[in-house]
Amino acid sequence: MIFRQLFDSISGTYSYLLASRRGGEALIIDPVLEKVDRYLQLVKELDLKLVKAVDTHIHADHVTGLGALRDRTHCITVMGEQARVDVVSMRVVEGDKLTIEGVALDVLYTPGHTDDSYSFLMQDRVFTGDTLLIRGTGRTDFQNGSARAQYQSLFGKLLKLPDETLVYPAHDYKGDTVSTIGEEKAFNPRLQVKSVDEYVDLMSKLNLPNPKMMDVAVPANMRQGLPQDEIARRGWALTATQAMAQIGDPNVALIDLREHSERERHGVIPGSLNAPYPDLAMNIRPGGVLYELACSTGKRLVFYCAFGERSAMAVQAAQDAGLTTACHIHGGMDAWRKAHGPLVH
Amino acid sequence: MIFRQLFDSISGTYSYLLASRRGGEALIIDPVLEKVDRYLQLVKELDLKLVKAVDTHIHADHVTGLGALRDRTHCITVMGEQARVDVVSMRVVEGDKLTIEGVALDVLYTPGHTDDSYSFLMQDRVFTGDTLLIRGTGRTDFQNGSARAQYQSLFGKLLKLPDETLVYPAHDYKGDTVSTIGEEKAFNPRLQVKSVDEYVDLMSKLNLPNPKMMDVAVPANMRQGLPQDEIARRGWALTATQAMAQIGDPNVALIDLREHSERERHGVIPGSLNAPYPDLAMNIRPGGVLYELACSTGKRLVFYCAFGERSAMAVQAAQDAGLTTACHIHGGMDAWRKAHGPLVH
Repeated sequence: MIFRQLFDSISGTYSYLLASRRGGEALIIDPVLEKVDRYLQLVKELDLKLVKAVDTHIHADHVTGLGALRDRTHCITVMGEQARVDVVSMRVVEGDKLTIEGVALDVLYTPGHTDDSYSFLMQDRVFTGDTLLIRGTGRTDFQNGSARAQYQSLFGKLLKLPDETLVYPAHDYKGDTVSTIGEEKAFNPRLQVKSVDEYVDLMSKLNLPNPKMMDVAVPANMRQGLPQDEIARRGWALTATQAMAQIGDPNVALIDLREHSERERHGVIPGSLNAPYPDLAMNIRPGGVLYELACSTGKRLVFYCAFGERSAMAVQAAQDAGLTTACHIHGGMDAWRKAHGPLVH
Repeated sequence: MIFRQLFDSISGTYSYLLASRRGGEALIIDPVLEKVDRYLQLVKELDLKLVKAVDTHIHADHVTGLGALRDRTHCITVMGEQARVDVVSMRVVEGDKLTIEGVALDVLYTPGHTDDSYSFLMQDRVFTGDTLLIRGTGRTDFQNGSARAQYQSLFGKLLKLPDETLVYPAHDYKGDTVSTIGEEKAFNPRLQVKSVDEYVDLMSKLNLPNPKMMDVAVPANMRQGLPQDEIARRGWALTATQAMAQIGDPNVALIDLREHSERERHGVIPGSLNAPYPDLAMNIRPGGVLYELACSTGKRLVFYCAFGERSAMAVQAAQDAGLTTACHIHGGMDAWRKAHGPLVH
């Protein structure tokens, strides 16, 4: 197991790089834009392949590294269903598993600091974002925060984890690096309340100034999507409506790049094949299944995913591999649903 | 196992709190004076008993928390044999074990950054002080530093540890928290040298300004000893010469507070009993062996240790427990040796 806690001293942010082995897939939680070079250097040195970059919520105190990491590594960006970000590659909800090779995090929806706040549980440790801090909790006075919701996230979910569970938050400002659920239950001053009303009252009296970076960070963090227009301009995109006409066309292979959990929850386009995005590079090189499918049958590969981001990256990679007819569904399943495209569950 | 990495953002110092269990003994490495309140709060919350505070070397960039921790917890302060500090409770050398309940660190003498630099190895991890940093090494241009010695400490000792050994340094300024020996061998730019001469040349060209705190920190860190004068003023101290006259006196019980390794290396005063300092509180309360010895025989307890620091704290504790004849040997075995007191090996 590779586990690295990385600190951004400007914003007091902790980011976490996880991988099951050297040479394997990696995932990063809450990356900071200014530290992206360091993360990528470390990823390279540890011989890792960054496949997912995850934000626990839309941060107000630093600009996320999600977009830059996606642009530089073609990794999948991940946030919760509720995040008011333009586009991320993949959205998760309570009960999902966030997986890479050898690592599976349980997805916990823990709103309160913001309404898009998630925590991620990995066996003996939980990444709590700004929901539970060491001897503190995230403020609840902006970005649709709710002390009432946070109380439920804390007392109803996080504090019900085993006492020995390690707590890795998104921030610390006092020099702590880790705590445990048992410690926080006993010594976190915000958690020594007898009722939700007492907690709401406590949080309403904090009177904190807004984060210095807020007016820069929040708008920047809400615009993370990969521009898909360039792909369209090159003629490599179909609208959802155009794609609907291709269903059943023997000259077309619809390729679903999503993961099993996304397919289960949202359904699939009839007749499409599943080839998850993390395996794309392997699949589209000579000898790979998609490359051979395209070359031996002459079929046009039409990629799709949740929001068009993975598929846009896939089109570029396929074109680079010489599959010159490859294209994708602009806007992905999100656009497909809005166009009332047929689905199979 | 309890393992806490704690950060002082002012000096970029990492301190480490170790214990084998809740409720057990704890040890802290490289504590920072300004963070002592936080350490002690954590020690209390985790129900630990701080028994040792260790500095890897005399720091030039922050004032050590050793003295304050000793004064507030009566813990044992520990440094290497070479440290030009007035008094610490205990000195260690290469090959020693630094132990608390359930934890044993191998003591490695790793000079170079300073001539008193030590590293401490605990199974899967090594605390490297300023000898080996993450993608760096400690400067060697003051405090009797030597790039040549550091090269030997690095290439001859630390880099010979297994590649997967975790590296926990005393500082980081870029947001890293941990590395491994294998990573540092491969990617630490200072370690990509072909010879000791190349390393010496590299280190000689760094041209670093002195640490901001140096003129304050170094003198402060060299004066850490517990003042023993107050104990003497109260009539609770014997000089080494006075103590020599007590050998064989049936009314006196000489109590050696040192650990086994210290007794082995430096010898013991003839006829003395061994009752290690960490057990003192238990031994001098009613029902404890020293309390019962003093009360049932009327013998005067004469404590001694390496430098008089543990014994001075023991005298105070014994007096507080009602053992009003208790005293100690001022300056400990160090004074005893200088006075040519007899020793048994």
